[in-house]
Amino acid sequence: MTPLYMDDLKVGDVFTSAEQVIDADQIRAFARAFDPQLFHLDDEAAKSTLFGGLAASGWHTAALTMRLLVTGGLPLAGGLIGAGTSLEWPNPTRPGDVLRVEVEILAINPSRSKPDRGMLRVRSRTLNQRNEAVQIAETKVLAFRRPSPA
Amino acid sequence: MTPLYMDDLKVGDVFTSAEQVIDADQIRAFARAFDPQLFHLDDEAAKSTLFGGLAASGWHTAALTMRLLVTGGLPLAGGLIGAGTSLEWPNPTRPGDVLRVEVEILAINPSRSKPDRGMLRVRSRTLNQRNEAVQIAETKVLAFRRPSPA
Repeated sequence: MTPLYMDDLKVGDVFTSAEQVIDADQIRAFARAFDPQLFHLDDEAAKSTLFGGLAASGWHTAALTMRLLVTGGLPLAGGLIGAGTSLEWPNPTRPGDVLRVEVEILAINPSRSKPDRGMLRVRSRTLNQRNEAVQIAETKVLAFRRPSPA
Repeated sequence: MTPLYMDDLKVGDVFTSAEQVIDADQIRAFARAFDPQLFHLDDEAAKSTLFGGLAASGWHTAALTMRLLVTGGLPLAGGLIGAGTSLEWPNPTRPGDVLRVEVEILAINPSRSKPDRGMLRVRSRTLNQRNEAVQIAETKVLAFRRPSPA
């Protein structure tokens, strides 16, 4: 998909990413590296926790969401650069889940000091194969204006 | 460190994690998996981007912050379970940075429906070796009450 400039976007535009499967090995590998807690590491032990079974780290869900956005879900010219985000995880990500991301443009704010860019506010919903949200985020994302012909 | 129950905490308590070094190989490996963009992947190409050089994905900084909290930075009984977070990345994380996390308890809200638990609001600042914040987050974290003796 052709990368989009701020000029190409309007409030209300919706984008949908490709899908990505997450398996138990990936969940455990991410947890060993970044979030070594029983409910992300051990299927059996996880059953007696709040999660009732193996669940991905929320940060794994967040990282996969970024992957889906960067690899086509939100094709912005100049790349996907977030300035800040507010996110929640309404449901856990489980082994075998098939995730996709839906993104909606909520606001487009041209920069006052830098005429070549602006800040988008976008809402992303990361959904599993049952259309349950595993992550909902509202994020400030940089967007560039189409360069004027020289 | 002994895991702490909600009863052990008070507003204003501050915790400091251990330190963790991040190197260029780790930055590139995380980016290949989750955030494959030039400024996280290629030292040379990164120089002509907004980042002016190789920088870690913000999600890598977030994941390392979680690692530092889980491995002793915020030792909560029952584990570290976040319900939602609001975060920003004021400065990029660079190869060779030494990160640590400072956490402050901002609020302690006992649950009305579940007497065995409550929700903390905590602010974490992830700092590099120059005490620059590379991530500032405000997060809702579950805490459990000390079980009463049977």
